[in-house]
Amino acid sequence: MTALEPRLLEVRKNVLKQNDIVARSLRDRFHTAGVFVVSLVSSPGSGKTAFLEKLLTMLRSNYRVAALVGDLATENDAARLARSRAPVKQIITGTLCHLEAAMVQNAINEEKWDLGQLDFLFIENVGNLVCPSSYDLGEDLRVVLLSVTEGEDKPLKYPTIFNSADVAIVTKSDLAVPVDFDWPATQRNIQAVRPGMRVFQLSAKTGDGMQPFLEFLAERLAESRAAAAV
Amino acid sequence: MTALEPRLLEVRKNVLKQNDIVARSLRDRFHTAGVFVVSLVSSPGSGKTAFLEKLLTMLRSNYRVAALVGDLATENDAARLARSRAPVKQIITGTLCHLEAAMVQNAINEEKWDLGQLDFLFIENVGNLVCPSSYDLGEDLRVVLLSVTEGEDKPLKYPTIFNSADVAIVTKSDLAVPVDFDWPATQRNIQAVRPGMRVFQLSAKTGDGMQPFLEFLAERLAESRAAAAV
Repeated sequence: MTALEPRLLEVRKNVLKQNDIVARSLRDRFHTAGVFVVSLVSSPGSGKTAFLEKLLTMLRSNYRVAALVGDLATENDAARLARSRAPVKQIITGTLCHLEAAMVQNAINEEKWDLGQLDFLFIENVGNLVCPSSYDLGEDLRVVLLSVTEGEDKPLKYPTIFNSADVAIVTKSDLAVPVDFDWPATQRNIQAVRPGMRVFQLSAKTGDGMQPFLEFLAERLAESRAAAAV
Repeated sequence: MTALEPRLLEVRKNVLKQNDIVARSLRDRFHTAGVFVVSLVSSPGSGKTAFLEKLLTMLRSNYRVAALVGDLATENDAARLARSRAPVKQIITGTLCHLEAAMVQNAINEEKWDLGQLDFLFIENVGNLVCPSSYDLGEDLRVVLLSVTEGEDKPLKYPTIFNSADVAIVTKSDLAVPVDFDWPATQRNIQAVRPGMRVFQLSAKTGDGMQPFLEFLAERLAESRAAAAV
C-alpha cells in the first residue's frame, strides 16, 4: 500500500524465518521434556484469562501445570492466574501485538522452569486476531477462542487466525441467550474457513462445558507421550 | 526480540513517515471540503459496525453522511452498513491489521465521492486494539470503542490505542447487568491512561445513550466549520 512495502515484506520474512528456527528448537525441547504445550489466541476480551484460570485450577489436582502470559503493558493477567496457584510468568511485549518464540524461550530460561517436571505448559498470547497467526511458538496445540458476544462472523473476517489454530472454543456460553447467539451460523462460518475443525462451547464462569475440553487435553497428552515412547 | 529488530524498526519508521505525509494531505482536503471525519477503532466484536449502522441511520435525516469500512477479508460490514442507505465503501486490507491513509485516499478517489457534498465521513478501522494506533488517517476525531463484555481492564492493557483516541464509547450497555459490568472501574482505568477523556456509554441495539453522542458530533461539526470560516 506504500512505496516501501516490498522492503517491509522482506524484513518481515526474515523475522519470521528467525522465529521459525527458535520455535523448532523450542518444540524439540518440549518433546524431549515430555511437556504438552497449548497456546491460546483470541481478540481482547474473549475470556482467555478467565478460561485459563479455570483450566489451571481444574487441572492442578491431577497434572503439573504452568503458564506464560503475554501482554503489552500490565502484569494483571499473571496476578489473576496466580490465584490458580500454578507457576505463572508474565511476558510484557511493549508495543508488539504478538508473542515470538524467543520471548517464550527467554521467559522459560529466566524462570529456570524444569520442563521435565511439567505435564502441561499454557501460553496465553496477546489479545489480537491478526498478529499472532504467523508466529510459531513451538506449541503442540493452538486454540482460538471466540466469545458469544463478539458476533458469529469473526471466522470469516479473520480467516488466517482460524487457519493457524487446531481447535476452536466458543466462550461465555452463559451469555448466549441475552445476545441471541446463533450457534449453527458460527459452526458454519468456522467450518467454511477450516473444514473439520473441532469446536468446544463452554463457560469459564459457570464451568459448563469445561469437562469435555479437559478430557480432550488428557487424550492429547497421552497420545503425545505414546508417540514419543515408540 | 530478534537480531533483526533495529532494521525492522527503521523500515516501520519510514512507512509511518510516508503515512503521515498522505494523512496530512487528506486532512487538508477534508478541511477545504468542510467534511468532519470520524474514525472508529476497537477490538473485533466490540460493536463498531452495529454502532455505525445506527449512527448513519439516525444522522441521515439531518446530515449528508458516508462511510468507509476496513476489513481483512470480507465485504460483510459494507453490506450491513448499506442498510442505513448511506454511501458505503469496503476496504479489504488482506493481511494488514490496520488501515493506512493511502487506502482511505484511494477509496475516496475510486468512489469519486464529492467531499464538499458531505457533512460527516466515518472510517471504521480493522478490529484491532494495537495496530491502528500509529496510523493517522487524516481524521478530525478518533473514537475508541469498548464493549461491556470485554472487561474493565482493557484501557490499562492497551494504553496506546486509548492515548491515540479523542473520545471513548462504552458499547453494549444493554448487557451491563448480565456481565456485572463495573462502570466506576472502567472510568478509573480510562482516566488513568488518558486523563480528562470524555466517555459515552450507549447501546446501539436499544438506542439508549445514542442521543448525547449525536449532539456531541453536531457541536464538533459546527465548531470545525466556525473555525474554518475565521
